[in-house]
Amino acid sequence: MKGIVGNEMGRLFVVSGPSGVGKGTLIKRLFSRLEGLALSVSATTRSPRPGEIDGVNYHFYSREQFEEGIERGYFFEYAAYNGNLYGSPAEGIVQQREAGHDVMMEIDVQGAMHVHELAPDAVLIYLKPPSLAELERRLRARRTESEERIQGRLAAALFEESFLARYNYVLVNDDLTIAEEILGAIVKAERKHKK
Amino acid sequence: MKGIVGNEMGRLFVVSGPSGVGKGTLIKRLFSRLEGLALSVSATTRSPRPGEIDGVNYHFYSREQFEEGIERGYFFEYAAYNGNLYGSPAEGIVQQREAGHDVMMEIDVQGAMHVHELAPDAVLIYLKPPSLAELERRLRARRTESEERIQGRLAAALFEESFLARYNYVLVNDDLTIAEEILGAIVKAERKHKK
Repeated sequence: MKGIVGNEMGRLFVVSGPSGVGKGTLIKRLFSRLEGLALSVSATTRSPRPGEIDGVNYHFYSREQFEEGIERGYFFEYAAYNGNLYGSPAEGIVQQREAGHDVMMEIDVQGAMHVHELAPDAVLIYLKPPSLAELERRLRARRTESEERIQGRLAAALFEESFLARYNYVLVNDDLTIAEEILGAIVKAERKHKK
Repeated sequence: MKGIVGNEMGRLFVVSGPSGVGKGTLIKRLFSRLEGLALSVSATTRSPRPGEIDGVNYHFYSREQFEEGIERGYFFEYAAYNGNLYGSPAEGIVQQREAGHDVMMEIDVQGAMHVHELAPDAVLIYLKPPSLAELERRLRARRTESEERIQGRLAAALFEESFLARYNYVLVNDDLTIAEEILGAIVKAERKHKK
């Protein structure tokens, strides 16, 4: 696919998966060994969790900042969940792709469906836990979440799995080394054979 | 995992996906470039479709032969669908794995669930079409199936997709070259990091 300036458009890789499955760790490892791939960091009005860094995990915005961003067309897409706003900055996606750079974004299933409507050539990748019991164990190991929040995340994971057929790739994150190799193989194969 | 004779057990790769998705072509291409992987060919009492070869696509058995096989414990697992019997010869799976060889089998979703119960360490891979519309196009291009059969296969594909969360990997077979690379990466990564 050609960009507006005539060069080859970069590919868009969308990574989803339940909270606690290890998306962040896996993407960090992937970026440490792949060249020429840009990461699109989402923006949100929710509060940072302990250990989350502004500009790395999310761009943390006030509601006023976020709404101002919506008004001036800053977001590629945005949505509201649980009373908070979440969005993907267009400059991190549209502009990078137009310049021929491949972009990866980490976004939940509903966001991914939204992105897919706007960019039907996006490669959708879902990272799943070996089982919901294992996901529960990982969420508890974080020690940052209340019992109610853990139960909410498990229910969300079950709901998200009903969208698996909409993804191009689903891979289990059981062994991090294997998952990293296969995610890398997907990115490399899809980049090599650009559409 | 250790086999009964103390050596490292071979891995079991189970490939499922709707009729017409291209499992056969993909597996044939994979076997032409991977060493040390054995293919387990299923047995069935159904009639061969035009072009199907005994011992390659299936072992075609009479009902008497099949029932005799069941009696002498020839099958790892078997099941009946649409009035026909389908089974996986144990010698192609259990014995090969015990000898340390990796085995790949092509089997439908219900068979895969059955195999997974008997071999929980099996790596389950689902090959999906880009869309059901594209699957329909591929089935029609075969010119071997009646309209009723095509509709039945599409309904089966939709049903099978409800099992995606039970698979370790799901990949779309849109571009054969990409699918082959990624299936190869899965097999290589899983073999390298034996459990």
